[in-house]
Amino acid sequence: MAVIVQKFGGSSVADPDKIRNVARIAIGEKERGNQVVVVVSAMGKTTDNLLKLAHEITSDPDPREIDMLISTGEQISIAMLAIAIQSMGHPARSFTGPQVGILTDNAHRKAKIVHINDSVLRRELNEGRIVIVAGFQGMTMDNEVTTLGRGGSDLTAVALAAALKADVCDIYTDVDGVYTADPRIVPNARKLDRISYDEMLELASLGAKVLHSRCVEVGKNFNVPIHVRSSFNLVPGTMVVQEVKEMEDIVVSGVAYNRAEAKISVLGVPDRPGIAAKLFGMLGDRGVVVDMIIQNVGSSGLNDISFTVSKDDLTEALKIADEFAKETGAREVISDRNIAKVSVVGVGMKSHSNVAATMFKALAKNNINIQMISTSEIKISCLIDEKDVDVAVRAIHDEFELQEAVKS
Amino acid sequence: MAVIVQKFGGSSVADPDKIRNVARIAIGEKERGNQVVVVVSAMGKTTDNLLKLAHEITSDPDPREIDMLISTGEQISIAMLAIAIQSMGHPARSFTGPQVGILTDNAHRKAKIVHINDSVLRRELNEGRIVIVAGFQGMTMDNEVTTLGRGGSDLTAVALAAALKADVCDIYTDVDGVYTADPRIVPNARKLDRISYDEMLELASLGAKVLHSRCVEVGKNFNVPIHVRSSFNLVPGTMVVQEVKEMEDIVVSGVAYNRAEAKISVLGVPDRPGIAAKLFGMLGDRGVVVDMIIQNVGSSGLNDISFTVSKDDLTEALKIADEFAKETGAREVISDRNIAKVSVVGVGMKSHSNVAATMFKALAKNNINIQMISTSEIKISCLIDEKDVDVAVRAIHDEFELQEAVKS
Repeated sequence: MAVIVQKFGGSSVADPDKIRNVARIAIGEKERGNQVVVVVSAMGKTTDNLLKLAHEITSDPDPREIDMLISTGEQISIAMLAIAIQSMGHPARSFTGPQVGILTDNAHRKAKIVHINDSVLRRELNEGRIVIVAGFQGMTMDNEVTTLGRGGSDLTAVALAAALKADVCDIYTDVDGVYTADPRIVPNARKLDRISYDEMLELASLGAKVLHSRCVEVGKNFNVPIHVRSSFNLVPGTMVVQEVKEMEDIVVSGVAYNRAEAKISVLGVPDRPGIAAKLFGMLGDRGVVVDMIIQNVGSSGLNDISFTVSKDDLTEALKIADEFAKETGAREVISDRNIAKVSVVGVGMKSHSNVAATMFKALAKNNINIQMISTSEIKISCLIDEKDVDVAVRAIHDEFELQEAVKS
Repeated sequence: MAVIVQKFGGSSVADPDKIRNVARIAIGEKERGNQVVVVVSAMGKTTDNLLKLAHEITSDPDPREIDMLISTGEQISIAMLAIAIQSMGHPARSFTGPQVGILTDNAHRKAKIVHINDSVLRRELNEGRIVIVAGFQGMTMDNEVTTLGRGGSDLTAVALAAALKADVCDIYTDVDGVYTADPRIVPNARKLDRISYDEMLELASLGAKVLHSRCVEVGKNFNVPIHVRSSFNLVPGTMVVQEVKEMEDIVVSGVAYNRAEAKISVLGVPDRPGIAAKLFGMLGDRGVVVDMIIQNVGSSGLNDISFTVSKDDLTEALKIADEFAKETGAREVISDRNIAKVSVVGVGMKSHSNVAATMFKALAKNNINIQMISTSEIKISCLIDEKDVDVAVRAIHDEFELQEAVKS
C-alpha cells in the first residue's frame, strides 16, 4: 500500500466549494488503495488578514504572539477539510503541527523542523483514516507554537513524506507543472515531465515560484519524489526526482528570471588586500544576503566592486556601502533598481560545453548588454537591463530549442 | 502579592480598540502589585461565524472537528491581547488551554475540566508576566482539543482561579453586577454588593444570565470569590461568596424569571403505582430535562400530570408524552408555550417563614393565576401566564421591598 502526502495551498481551500474539491481529490487517492496524508495552508487571505489585525495594534508585534495568531489559519482549514471529507462518507481526522509531532527550533516566524515523530500519523493511517495536517506550523521543545516562514506548507508536506517514507509528495498548485520557462512570457514553453532536485533548487532560487527551495532541499536530502501538479485537472505534472544518467542528455532544462534584485556599485575603491572581505563582511553581519559579485581593477590601481541584493534590502545595503566608502576612501556608491537576472539551468551542463556561448549569442543577437555573469555547475546567470527581460527569456528559450521535447 | 484572575467575554474584545481597553484594565491590576491572569473569549461573533462556515459543508459536523475549528477563536484573542499589552510596555504571554495544562474529559463541545496543571502559570507569573489564557478550551489525555460548552470561558477563569488559589476571579461583563431583578423590567432594581454561591446558582438556573451556573459551582466547591463587574467602569460590582451568618438577615436577595420553558399536561392517566416513574423515566432516557412537576389525583381515580421542559425540547417531549399516553391509556396530552416562571431567591428563607405567602400575595393583588409551584430551601418558583411576567416581577420586587438596601 502506497503512502501519499498531498499538499494544497491557500487558494485551493479558499471557500467551502474549493474545500470540497480538495476532499474529492484526497478521497480519490484513498479509494485507489493508498494511505493519504493531506497538508493544507490557511484559507485564501486568512494569514494576511490576521497579520493586518495585529498591525492595527502595533507595527512591531512579538513574533511568538504572531505565530500563536497566524497558526489559527491552518487550524481552521484542517477542521473544514476533515468535515468535508467526513461529509462524503470517508473517515478523516485533522491535526495541528504540534499534535502530529512536528518539532522545530525556537526561531519564531521562520522555524526549522528538527524532528517529526511519526507515531500519531502511523496510527491514524493504519486505522484507515485520511489524515489532515496543518501546514506551516510546529512546536518547540517547550511546547511553544512556531511557524515555518515562506514555503512553510510545502516544507511540512515534504518533511512528513520523508518521515513516513512516502512514495510521493504531491504538491497541488494552480499551474500543472514546472515549465521550461514562464508561459506568460514564452507561450511555447514546454511542461517538463521530470527535473532533478538540483535543477529545481537552482530554478527556485533563480525566481521560478512554483516550489520553494526549502522543500526541494528536504526532498533531495531524504529522496522524496515531489510531484508538482494542478488541483484543477488530474493530469500528471512534473516529477522532481534524483538525477539519473539520462538526464545528462538534456543540456538545459529551463530558463528562469528574477526581477527582485538591485545592483550596487562601489567605485574607486583603493586596491588593498582584504578590502572586498571587509565590504561583504559588513553586509553579512547586518543580515544582507548578496547574490552576484563582480570586481575589476582599473589601470589606476582602484577597484570597482558591483554586487546585487534583494530590492527589499537595497536601502540597508546602500547605507552599509556608504559607510564602507567613507571608511576606505572609495570614490562613489551608485545603485540601479532596473536590472534583472536571466538564467539557464540544466544538469547536462556538467558534461556539455558551449552552453554559456549559446546563451551569450542569444542575448547578443537581440542587442542585450550583459552587466554581470555568474555560474555554477548546473546554471548560468546574466544580469541585464530589466526592460529586456521578456525578449531575453524568449531568445534564450528559442536558442536552446526548449519547446522541443528531448528525445532520450 | 495577590493573584487575580480576570475574564473578559467576546464583546469586550470585539475589536482592537476594545482589546486595548482590556489591556489597560489588566495592566492597572498588575501595577497595583498583583499577579494577573487574563482569560478571554473569542472576538465578537468569531465563534458563530466559524460554526456557520462549517455548516456550509454539512448540517451535522463532527464535534471533534468543530472543537478544532472553534478553538481558534480564543487563540486569536489571546495573541491579540498579548500584543496589545506588550505594545503598552508590559511583559505578557498568551497560552492556549492545552498549553496551560487544562485537562478535560473526552466530551467534545461540552467537555468537563478534570485537572489543571498550574506549573506553566506559576512560572510565568513568577517571571512577572501578565498571563493570557484562552477561555472555553482544554485538552484530553490523548492530546485532543476540546471545548467546554456554554459558559465555558467563565468556567475556565474560575477553574484557573481555583488552581492558583487566587484571591479573586473578576468576571467582567456589560452589566455592573447582579441585581435584585432585571433592571429592564424593574427600573428601581438594586445592585447587590454580595450574594452567596447558592443564591447565585439558583438565580443562574432560574434565568438570570449574568453568570453561568457551572462556574458558580466550581467557585463554591473551591471557595473562589467571584466578582461580577463592568468592563466599562471600574466601580465594585457584586461579590459571589460563601454564605456568612449576616446573609440570613436578607430574606430575599433577588427575583428571577424565565420564559424559556413550556408546559405539558397528560390528562386522565390511570392511577397505578409507578406510572409517574414510567413517564419521567422515558423522558430522562431520551435526554429531556424536566423542571417543575405537578400531579393531582381527581375523584375519578385518574391522574393529571403536568410538567415543564425547555421550549427547545418541547417537540421531543410531546412525542414521548404521546407514546406514554398511548401505552397507558391516558386520555389526552396538551401543551402550552405561553408560560413563564418567576422565582424569589434568598438564603434567609431557611430561617424566615412567610416568604411563600408574601410572594403569593403579590401575585394575587395583581390577579395573576399560579399554575404550578416549586420550592427549594432557598427559592420559591411560580409558573404563570407569560403575559403577566413583567407585572409579576415588579409586584414581587415591591412586596419584598428589594429596592431598599438592607441594614445589616
